[in-house]
Amino acid sequence: MPHIALTSTEPGIRGLLRYRPQTARPLAELTEVLLRGPGTLARGERELIAAYVSALNDCRYCSSSHSACAAAQLPGGIAVVEQVCNDPATAPVSAKLKALLAIAAAVARSGRAVTTEHVTRARTAGATDLEIHDTVLIAAAFCMFNRYVDGLATTEPDDPGAYAAGAQRLISQGYLPPAEPGRDG
Amino acid sequence: MPHIALTSTEPGIRGLLRYRPQTARPLAELTEVLLRGPGTLARGERELIAAYVSALNDCRYCSSSHSACAAAQLPGGIAVVEQVCNDPATAPVSAKLKALLAIAAAVARSGRAVTTEHVTRARTAGATDLEIHDTVLIAAAFCMFNRYVDGLATTEPDDPGAYAAGAQRLISQGYLPPAEPGRDG
Repeated sequence: MPHIALTSTEPGIRGLLRYRPQTARPLAELTEVLLRGPGTLARGERELIAAYVSALNDCRYCSSSHSACAAAQLPGGIAVVEQVCNDPATAPVSAKLKALLAIAAAVARSGRAVTTEHVTRARTAGATDLEIHDTVLIAAAFCMFNRYVDGLATTEPDDPGAYAAGAQRLISQGYLPPAEPGRDG
Repeated sequence: MPHIALTSTEPGIRGLLRYRPQTARPLAELTEVLLRGPGTLARGERELIAAYVSALNDCRYCSSSHSACAAAQLPGGIAVVEQVCNDPATAPVSAKLKALLAIAAAVARSGRAVTTEHVTRARTAGATDLEIHDTVLIAAAFCMFNRYVDGLATTEPDDPGAYAAGAQRLISQGYLPPAEPGRDG
């Protein structure tokens, strides 16, 4: 049961976004730019970074949601997502993605845990500065979202089908709320 | 020296916001709503939560910046900010603010560290649901900003005067970038 009286029964971050529209808007815009905006990392790879960090932070709602989004957009499906969450070093993903996932894991511990060696390894494997930037910010943003969702004790669906359906909706419609006729933003 | 080649020499998050305007906009909007938007927590109290979490996360740039903003807007000035960062339990702040700072410290550890007891204590001391919500989200957001700033190894001014001057600018102008004539957003 959530720590505060929300205005809807929607699970996870959805109930929080509904409760506080003033913060929901920039949070949704940030997620849309990072996970779906123009970029050289595939959308499935960016969702994988979000899912991995959420798993490290033990946030069940976010890790289930973004694992489903990653699985639906990556060639290897859920099997690869689960391998990455268990141990990125041995998972069947590119050397570049492994290096970016190592940066994301460091960020989850502390910003100060990201070393020159982490960055050199990613760059040697072909990562651009913008990809390194976005990996750090995706990982940092999910350190926020995970704490927001669990810090207010939001509810989470038990049914895996709910996450799969949510993923299909996010993949087709994105993270921004639908425009409401007659209202700004 | 930053881990990536930024487009300016501005310290801390300022260089990152300049580097990636697409993410800068929602980040600035989120900060403006949380730290300066309409609300029943004083702006100085909200800055104090941001400074305290940044100190817990050992992010020197953010803790210095937001300590300066809190000091300029709280009756007790920098002495109270330093007492809170050292030990909120014995600092000369209200019982409500102490309870909210305890929630913020829990969020910095993990979302799952926030307990019903934390929330009951805050509510008993007079905190509203919205104040509890915003405290959790401010703390979570600074877990993001701190990791973003340090994860990319941005630079930080040594001169305390630079933070005081920055605080005066933020207090008078806010966190949103100045509008640029002839451009959207």
